[in-house]
Amino acid sequence: MRLRVDPLPLPELAFADVVLVVDVIRATTTAACFLEAGAEALYLTSSLETARAFKDQDVVLAGEEGGLRPPGFDLGNSPREALEAPVGGRTVVMSTTNGTRAAHLAAKTAKHVLLASLFNAHAAARKALELATEEVAILCAGKEGRVGLDDLYTAGVLAEYLLLMREMSPEDGARIALTLKRAYPDPLEPLSLSAAAQALKGVGLEADVPFCAQVAQSSAVPILSGRVGEALIFKRAGKAS
Amino acid sequence: MRLRVDPLPLPELAFADVVLVVDVIRATTTAACFLEAGAEALYLTSSLETARAFKDQDVVLAGEEGGLRPPGFDLGNSPREALEAPVGGRTVVMSTTNGTRAAHLAAKTAKHVLLASLFNAHAAARKALELATEEVAILCAGKEGRVGLDDLYTAGVLAEYLLLMREMSPEDGARIALTLKRAYPDPLEPLSLSAAAQALKGVGLEADVPFCAQVAQSSAVPILSGRVGEALIFKRAGKAS
Ligand SMILES: [Ca+2]
Ligand SMILES: [Ca+2]
Ligand SMILES: [Ca+2]
Repeated sequence: MRLRVDPLPLPELAFADVVLVVDVIRATTTAACFLEAGAEALYLTSSLETARAFKDQDVVLAGEEGGLRPPGFDLGNSPREALEAPVGGRTVVMSTTNGTRAAHLAAKTAKHVLLASLFNAHAAARKALELATEEVAILCAGKEGRVGLDDLYTAGVLAEYLLLMREMSPEDGARIALTLKRAYPDPLEPLSLSAAAQALKGVGLEADVPFCAQVAQSSAVPILSGRVGEALIFKRAGKAS
Repeated sequence: MRLRVDPLPLPELAFADVVLVVDVIRATTTAACFLEAGAEALYLTSSLETARAFKDQDVVLAGEEGGLRPPGFDLGNSPREALEAPVGGRTVVMSTTNGTRAAHLAAKTAKHVLLASLFNAHAAARKALELATEEVAILCAGKEGRVGLDDLYTAGVLAEYLLLMREMSPEDGARIALTLKRAYPDPLEPLSLSAAAQALKGVGLEADVPFCAQVAQSSAVPILSGRVGEALIFKRAGKAS
């Protein structure tokens, strides 16, 4: 079984099997939180316009513009807010940039696409191993084409869990992520240093960073289960056996 | 002064100032070796065909196909061979894939493009600082769109030299590369583990790996100084003051 980590969503990448998409600050953490709060489905859209097109349907609109809730949206992209949101049994339309781009890239070729974060790290790694036959790939979202310390560190945490559970062959990206994981004993440190955290601080949302740094708090793993238009539909994966 | 490391040449990347392009196994190591051997200029071409088009001119053709010297070429892409090659005063046309792609990307926007490796690491870092006014970026070539442990480790070596010489602000990629550098005391270890080294082993060229792992052996730094057609022309940079 191959263990692969891609630090950035290069358009030419192809995936043979299972992909764990990581955008730890904040899209994939927030996605797990919406499922924890009881959401029935998540629609990932790549633009605010695509999200707004769902407005007439019975959905909850969540998204961000410069880190904040866009006009006309019900919610922002804060995982703290998502966890408390009244979304039980409902569909949440999430508009994000980097995480969605990575998820769409994975969806083009992968057999299974899961959304992973520190928050659901253990459950996501277990689910990936349950589904995989030849490869688990961890695809980091990064930030506008630049690598993220936060996402690659999270990939290292996932990779370490995976290697604890199964003998796997780590390629270059996995070795880099594992090195990063082992260099930072406290997850809050690499997350706080990242450009993503700095951007949140700029808009007064720095409390989201320690939230995103919590490890293995949730067993909710979003799994790709269809599309509606260009939006990707994620639902809660069945419990890993 | 910003210190930036990009692990992969994403097409959308733009560079404000100086870029150090790294393809340590083997293109940028071999480039320094050709200059050490006295070559007057290096033409970097992205395909064997583009390189062959120079055949009628008084040039030395160097390149690789699956790691080996292509038919009709004078030399392969081995740095050991390059260092001993009779190229004094001549132009060497180098056809490589990953390194050239990264150099072309950098050349689209950067003010200065240098080719860096472990072999010329110290000289390349010094030259970059001499030229830079706001940013030094280290752009790793990777291997067919996948991150290379060898290239990102080399970026860490360069980043550490740069930080020793000048106070700089490392962004996410630079922090990742520095962590990698500090995790491997012996450069031969990360280079040997890389997919690039494994590929060389497959064609019996594994002796190139310890050669590429030598640090700061050369003061020859190739600097972009023009174009001929789509080929990039590199010459030896003047000694850093
Ligand atoms: Ca992010
Ligand atoms: Ca290479
Ligand atoms: Ca090469």
